Amino acid sequence: MFNPTELIRKKRDGGKPSREELEFLIKGYLDGTIPEYQMSAFLMAVFFRRMDFEETSVFTDVMLHSGVVVDLSSIPGIKVDKHSTGGVGDKVSIILAPMVAACGVPVPMISGRGLGHTGGTLDKLESIPGFRTNLSLEEYKRVIAEVGVVMIGQTKEIAPADKLMYALRDVTGTVESIPLISGSIMSKKLAEGIDALVLDIKTGRGAFMQKQEDAFELAQNLIAIGTNFGKTTIGFLTDMNQPLGLAAGNWLEIVECIDCLRGKHIPDLMEVTYVLGGAMVMLGGKSKTIQEGIEQCKEVIHNRKAFDKFVEMVKRHEGNIFYIMNPESYPQSKFNIEIKSNQTGYISGIDALEIGHTCIQLGAGRMKVDDVIDPNAGVIFKKKIGDKVNTGETLATMFTDVERVVQESANRVVNAFTFSETPVQSPTLIHALIDKDGVHEWKTAV
Amino acid sequence: MFNPTELIRKKRDGGKPSREELEFLIKGYLDGTIPEYQMSAFLMAVFFRRMDFEETSVFTDVMLHSGVVVDLSSIPGIKVDKHSTGGVGDKVSIILAPMVAACGVPVPMISGRGLGHTGGTLDKLESIPGFRTNLSLEEYKRVIAEVGVVMIGQTKEIAPADKLMYALRDVTGTVESIPLISGSIMSKKLAEGIDALVLDIKTGRGAFMQKQEDAFELAQNLIAIGTNFGKTTIGFLTDMNQPLGLAAGNWLEIVECIDCLRGKHIPDLMEVTYVLGGAMVMLGGKSKTIQEGIEQCKEVIHNRKAFDKFVEMVKRHEGNIFYIMNPESYPQSKFNIEIKSNQTGYISGIDALEIGHTCIQLGAGRMKVDDVIDPNAGVIFKKKIGDKVNTGETLATMFTDVERVVQESANRVVNAFTFSETPVQSPTLIHALIDKDGVHEWKTAV
Repeated sequence: MFNPTELIRKKRDGGKPSREELEFLIKGYLDGTIPEYQMSAFLMAVFFRRMDFEETSVFTDVMLHSGVVVDLSSIPGIKVDKHSTGGVGDKVSIILAPMVAACGVPVPMISGRGLGHTGGTLDKLESIPGFRTNLSLEEYKRVIAEVGVVMIGQTKEIAPADKLMYALRDVTGTVESIPLISGSIMSKKLAEGIDALVLDIKTGRGAFMQKQEDAFELAQNLIAIGTNFGKTTIGFLTDMNQPLGLAAGNWLEIVECIDCLRGKHIPDLMEVTYVLGGAMVMLGGKSKTIQEGIEQCKEVIHNRKAFDKFVEMVKRHEGNIFYIMNPESYPQSKFNIEIKSNQTGYISGIDALEIGHTCIQLGAGRMKVDDVIDPNAGVIFKKKIGDKVNTGETLATMFTDVERVVQESANRVVNAFTFSETPVQSPTLIHALIDKDGVHEWKTAV
Repeated sequence: MFNPTELIRKKRDGGKPSREELEFLIKGYLDGTIPEYQMSAFLMAVFFRRMDFEETSVFTDVMLHSGVVVDLSSIPGIKVDKHSTGGVGDKVSIILAPMVAACGVPVPMISGRGLGHTGGTLDKLESIPGFRTNLSLEEYKRVIAEVGVVMIGQTKEIAPADKLMYALRDVTGTVESIPLISGSIMSKKLAEGIDALVLDIKTGRGAFMQKQEDAFELAQNLIAIGTNFGKTTIGFLTDMNQPLGLAAGNWLEIVECIDCLRGKHIPDLMEVTYVLGGAMVMLGGKSKTIQEGIEQCKEVIHNRKAFDKFVEMVKRHEGNIFYIMNPESYPQSKFNIEIKSNQTGYISGIDALEIGHTCIQLGAGRMKVDDVIDPNAGVIFKKKIGDKVNTGETLATMFTDVERVVQESANRVVNAFTFSETPVQSPTLIHALIDKDGVHEWKTAV
């Protein structure tokens, strides 16, 4: 039995809580004996004092064991998942998971909802009528065993301490802490039953880690923790300055995924998807190199096996296949606004953070926990960085049902674009490959 | 309307909340719209980021105006109070307040309870049977007008935001913050209706500010705030390495105060009492210099006017005068243990922090908010720093009703003493005088 105030003071003054002390705090918080106000003070002390690697590992382990650790060992194959730190227009998981599964690597995936200015895989999947992300752990195991891919939300059994703590961090200004982010991500991922993990660490204007040095630190932390828990973990540092792909908004992104799974090539989106997928195929033991994995991924896209796997998964999640096959039949937004360029030049930037916030304003995300998402709301880009446009040309189309936000949102979208008089290169998408041995240049072309 | 999470993040990242933002937070906390977990995260961010002088002043002002600011302007004279940052054996207020009042300076005093390892004036006064520290503000005004001295606790009308926040700080590791301490002290003192204030800033082992540099910073902060609010404020930096005077424990200290008010000279206790009192008499306009004020204080001690004023005050607080006149009739502790020296030498230290914690163990303080205090428990010292003792000689007497703590407490008391083979000087008691113009050497002898 410890004194919680003394524990907070210890952390505050730069001390290192023991495993027993972290267990006392975290389990006490979960069972209600440690009140929220003590946990939030502790979390703020962690924000300032950080945690070293050992402490972060213990913290992760305590959160992991606050719930069930799923055992998928009876299912053949090396189970591999991907985690992204989140961005705007980041629908990669929805193409990637069935694609990698179609290559023969089981993908058990537990995803999250929209957070801050970013969208969430669960919210996107739930824009498919009927799609259940709340499968029980029993259903989860059955679907991964039978389909090879499953995509659910954090159940009440999975790292419940993380779930509770995450909600508290969100309202106490303690989200942006590398050890807390690391513990939160890894406690959930380690609970899924995976054997290996590929990380997509986003950096830039629309990422939570805007600075590359922070993104590197987070990546190295996550990889070290994964490795420490016996899971092969590698990561890619990828660009999140402009939105990824062409759509931002829940159903809009599902349509983009359907298009890509049917073979449409949207360059930035598919480059990230193929590289992450290739790495998963390699970690899953189905290829020797990432490059070979990429080739396999391309093949299952082109021969439609990835799309078929997606349809099979949607069915098993009770989603309505009619809309997958006929996306044009989906209900439409009331307002459908063309955003026109007010200048001529080369697009030099599309502020992903501002686009993310605008999408929330349009109805695509939540301002309060109980807000209902409008699946149609969002933005579809016609132009991206490097494109040349003329005054009056359409930059994007904006969708919403909320008349009163139309004018302001339209201004925000157009102002998110910056221009250059001289030609602009498309930004480098994949900055580096990171594994337990360090940071490596990433050169392989897709 | 502000977003509380954004406000926490602003403070966390080194920003400076505006008056409106502090009002939103503090008033919201008081009316329950800002939950405790957000306030505690904000307080921890303040611990790390501190507040500059302007922010501390605004913070103090918002706390002050969360309740009533008492108006004593209809009462003649310059009202002066004293505040001590707290120590072990610090019963100065109980001698000082009637002494200064006997010199013709009204002393309206709102005091606190025991905190951490220190005793509290209210707990000491309440060891006098019948003594009510919970006078209403109306009674408070009547007693100060008619008696010239009144000693109460923080009523629900006085700085209620501070009262609520203090309780939260106590259990969230956010006590030791100079701006938070400053705001807490000054919001209460400014609400009392005073015209001037004398501060006793304790430093050393038994003080909250163990380091002199922190004590200086706190003193300068408090003086700047007082001055800023138009109240003449001066402070003394005083030593709190060994307990002050001979008694530590509630009723034991009252008896020591009665003795001193009747003319007994306990050197360290009376030096601090006279110097603070002399300063109050000067600020109250009854003497030109502190030294002259000290002489007046000595006179009212010697002519018993201070004792008579104390008796008058106790009566008006409904305290039983019989025990003031006959302290030997007070009930006695079950265990009354002589603590003998295990060595021969000169006493070089008596660890005030350890003595404070031991007193709590004996029953003189609270471990939990609802613990009941034993008024008899505590320690009376026979020897202090500089005294020569022989093995077997009595160092102190220890009082308690709790048999199971006797052995451990006795060991703690004897181990709180350190010895030297060579003669040791009594420590310097008053390190400096501090006013709005800076720090001054303090040389005047008592």
